[in-house]
Amino acid sequence: MSITFSLDKSTRTLLYQQLAEQIKGAIVRGELTEGMQLPPVRRLAADLGVSTTTVAQAYDLLASEGVIGGHVGRGTYILSSPLTALARARAPFGGDPHAQGGSVAGAFQRQRQDWAASWLGGLALQTSRAGQLQWLTQRALERWGDPATMINLSSGYPDVSLFPIERWERSMARAGQLLAEEVRRASGLQVLQYGSTLGDEALRSYLCQYFTRFGFHPEPQEILLTSGNQQGLDLVARVLLTPGESVFIEEPAYLAALDIFEQQRIACQPIPIDEEGLRLDLLEQALEAPAVRPRLLCVVPTAHSPTGVTLSRERRQRLVELASRYNLLIVEDDYCSELFYSEAGCEPPPALRSFDREGRVIYLKSFNKLIFPTLRFGCIVAAPPILARLVEGQQAFARGASLPLARALLEHLSDSAFEEELCCCRQEYRRRRDVLLNLLEEELAGLDCRWTIPTAGFNLLLWLPPHLQEYEVIEKAADRGLLLAPGQLFRAESSQQQCPSVRLTFADKSPEQLREGIKRLSSTLRALLYGSNAGQSQASPDLFTAV
Amino acid sequence: MSITFSLDKSTRTLLYQQLAEQIKGAIVRGELTEGMQLPPVRRLAADLGVSTTTVAQAYDLLASEGVIGGHVGRGTYILSSPLTALARARAPFGGDPHAQGGSVAGAFQRQRQDWAASWLGGLALQTSRAGQLQWLTQRALERWGDPATMINLSSGYPDVSLFPIERWERSMARAGQLLAEEVRRASGLQVLQYGSTLGDEALRSYLCQYFTRFGFHPEPQEILLTSGNQQGLDLVARVLLTPGESVFIEEPAYLAALDIFEQQRIACQPIPIDEEGLRLDLLEQALEAPAVRPRLLCVVPTAHSPTGVTLSRERRQRLVELASRYNLLIVEDDYCSELFYSEAGCEPPPALRSFDREGRVIYLKSFNKLIFPTLRFGCIVAAPPILARLVEGQQAFARGASLPLARALLEHLSDSAFEEELCCCRQEYRRRRDVLLNLLEEELAGLDCRWTIPTAGFNLLLWLPPHLQEYEVIEKAADRGLLLAPGQLFRAESSQQQCPSVRLTFADKSPEQLREGIKRLSSTLRALLYGSNAGQSQASPDLFTAV
Repeated sequence: MSITFSLDKSTRTLLYQQLAEQIKGAIVRGELTEGMQLPPVRRLAADLGVSTTTVAQAYDLLASEGVIGGHVGRGTYILSSPLTALARARAPFGGDPHAQGGSVAGAFQRQRQDWAASWLGGLALQTSRAGQLQWLTQRALERWGDPATMINLSSGYPDVSLFPIERWERSMARAGQLLAEEVRRASGLQVLQYGSTLGDEALRSYLCQYFTRFGFHPEPQEILLTSGNQQGLDLVARVLLTPGESVFIEEPAYLAALDIFEQQRIACQPIPIDEEGLRLDLLEQALEAPAVRPRLLCVVPTAHSPTGVTLSRERRQRLVELASRYNLLIVEDDYCSELFYSEAGCEPPPALRSFDREGRVIYLKSFNKLIFPTLRFGCIVAAPPILARLVEGQQAFARGASLPLARALLEHLSDSAFEEELCCCRQEYRRRRDVLLNLLEEELAGLDCRWTIPTAGFNLLLWLPPHLQEYEVIEKAADRGLLLAPGQLFRAESSQQQCPSVRLTFADKSPEQLREGIKRLSSTLRALLYGSNAGQSQASPDLFTAV
Repeated sequence: MSITFSLDKSTRTLLYQQLAEQIKGAIVRGELTEGMQLPPVRRLAADLGVSTTTVAQAYDLLASEGVIGGHVGRGTYILSSPLTALARARAPFGGDPHAQGGSVAGAFQRQRQDWAASWLGGLALQTSRAGQLQWLTQRALERWGDPATMINLSSGYPDVSLFPIERWERSMARAGQLLAEEVRRASGLQVLQYGSTLGDEALRSYLCQYFTRFGFHPEPQEILLTSGNQQGLDLVARVLLTPGESVFIEEPAYLAALDIFEQQRIACQPIPIDEEGLRLDLLEQALEAPAVRPRLLCVVPTAHSPTGVTLSRERRQRLVELASRYNLLIVEDDYCSELFYSEAGCEPPPALRSFDREGRVIYLKSFNKLIFPTLRFGCIVAAPPILARLVEGQQAFARGASLPLARALLEHLSDSAFEEELCCCRQEYRRRRDVLLNLLEEELAGLDCRWTIPTAGFNLLLWLPPHLQEYEVIEKAADRGLLLAPGQLFRAESSQQQCPSVRLTFADKSPEQLREGIKRLSSTLRALLYGSNAGQSQASPDLFTAV
């Protein structure tokens, strides 16, 4: 088998872009596999009869997309990416693309003896949904060419420009100062040493007080510090679940939760949500089913991801009752309850955990979207018998959370300015949500779209006209400089949901950006529905749907 | 079946201690199981005819040992602990202690309907070795009664009193200040946002330069930031290995590595070490064996844990050659290479990774023992194809490492004072090691003991007289106020090694403490060897050996 490249100097597409695209094609077809070494720039340039600059630019482009990696003197390799995942998914069951045989020719040597390829070829880890989204974003930015004019509504991010960095600076300095004072007292030295896996007691004690705002009152020994809800959920899944079993999850669901369960081969049984959150009638039906059914439900009751809806107070009460009746454990994922918009006549409901009298609710709290994403801090609140098991896992897998980081967070949260800052964020995010909702009303009128009305958080979910293809909308929008997060990333593998959708993030966008973005969305949809510019996309549908 | 307690007022042992011990006995026998609720203090006191203070003190004691947990108003539960693990291990295969039937009587109600017990009963997670050591320590301290006079040679800890906390205070303040300056520049804002899973680029760039001291020169994109080598190794095991396969590991081995592999059902095939580190002749024999053999070796080449020996330069070279010949991946765990003692004629050998031309060595670096244990920071250096897979795992399981923590570490490491501080630590640890070695020569002469000569790190391994029982030495030493870490914690489950041993930590002890500790050890051994006080131990040997 030979890999041939046909570079066409007569087209508008630059040679290095053609080469990069063709290398990607060879990866998707399984002709180039993960861990294989690419030929040196000079050699490939000579083989193809192009300049070394062309090959070097192609390699740079592929490296910027995370498709290849390596550096001078040690070779360049095909990395694991959505492309290699796609190639694995396309291989026949149990199949090995290496096993096809055939002679090796062309510019690339198939290095069967290459240790990394043989070592990694058998591994089953999938590219995560988070990784796919990142990669789609990178690819679209690359194709659009100008990050400044791209409108990215796919991020799911808070707006870090609202974060009071000056106060964080003081929080770090003050935390360091207090820590040093404590350590200088002989009795305080032990805080630096290995100690309780639960993590810093000063922060845990403060959090007990902090959580009263959500209607529950844990003790410090019921709290385990983590790096966030992703780590928290991963720990829960590793310690309390077994590969092969299944869990109940919302439909649509938090992308990272799907990632965690799928990587651990835990099946997700989706339960649809409506404007009041999880459909308890459907949950109860599933619980009554005679078949083996999940023992655990994972739910994001406030600011549900990706829709932004909030589980009503009545449903919270009833969900906890159902858990008790059916011996269900509940994981409550709270990443931004503080950002409930609190409009007139609409108060934030208490945490699910506040209704729980039996210790069935495992409450996961993350501060990463509330403070800033690269903080990496959160905690788990759980009843003693459950927490003891999670602590055993934490002790074996990663030990406790960082002390200096815990102290900086403690300083930051306990300052009186924190509440005012939250208030500003709430107002700003609500304002942006309103702008987006108005734009959707104006621009998408008559296009057979529906969307959720977020009561908290950063995003909403938009259902597209039912007969459109999700990937096609995403690709055509990208061609117009608009990035959307495909609804498919938020659906479990077993989902029966057919209606195409996209997640729209408003939190990190100005009103002007939102306006421009929705205009581009509207024109994309109109083009697809009414036919103008229909054939414009250059993307391969396969590439997207099979990943 | 009834649980009866016989509290004897005529003995010297206080009533509450008797009650606590008997509750523990009932847990080990499987009569009280994890998640079961204990009766309220008042009721049990009435049933037993003792004061509420007695029951409350017993509960407090058990809670302090982590055996029970809970708090006022919500009941007290049996927690997962080495005791419940022991009960699980003792249950017949597939057996459920609940299934024995029989009438429920006595002070405790067996609550079969208790949800936590039914939920947790089927889970297989073992108590970690780290957890066992912590628990043994806590129990011995409890029995000895006076922490101030206990000599704890079991910790494995660095001496945090040597840490320059004032400089750390400045590092945190300076890191906060520089971060705020960066964020105030519009282009710097993105460091707060979700970004590369590799972690902060500023620290990764600095580490490239830092690692030249160990003879290798990575690029920033070959580094993934972690919370330490435990998390790093866990990630490697989850992403590159599959439950059911096996790895080569040193004998004896790093306790946390054994924990990680065992929790993931990865079998450990031990390769003995000698004074120059891993026995490559035995490794090669194992590699030549026709049977299915491990594809990965995990090694601590400098300051091997628990012996303190260092793999010689010649063996490092040859080990990398063997890896290439037999297609083996190597995990190099470096937690304190900087603390190699560098005596006359004895220079620190370069990192294993520095001999590696094929990218077969995955280098794990932890800063937690070098800075302080509750820091929680480290990194993985690996070749691009391997690192890409690890990044996928990190992205799905926990996202990246903390930015503010990365920046504080960067400030701390890059200050010129850091090298002087390392130098002081090296000298101090070497001095303590010398004190310990001299004491062993003096005090254990003629007792048929052997020990390793550490060239780096915090510990040595002492082999006890071959016909003594390890648990007996540990228990008798604890009765004399001396805490030792059982060698068994550092042996893989499949180990054939018979000779009893203990790990002795010298790094966090003063010469006076070392002197007193070794005197107690000597008298313990002499009593066991020559018969005085032979029957003194009150511990159940079962309790220790079966955990």
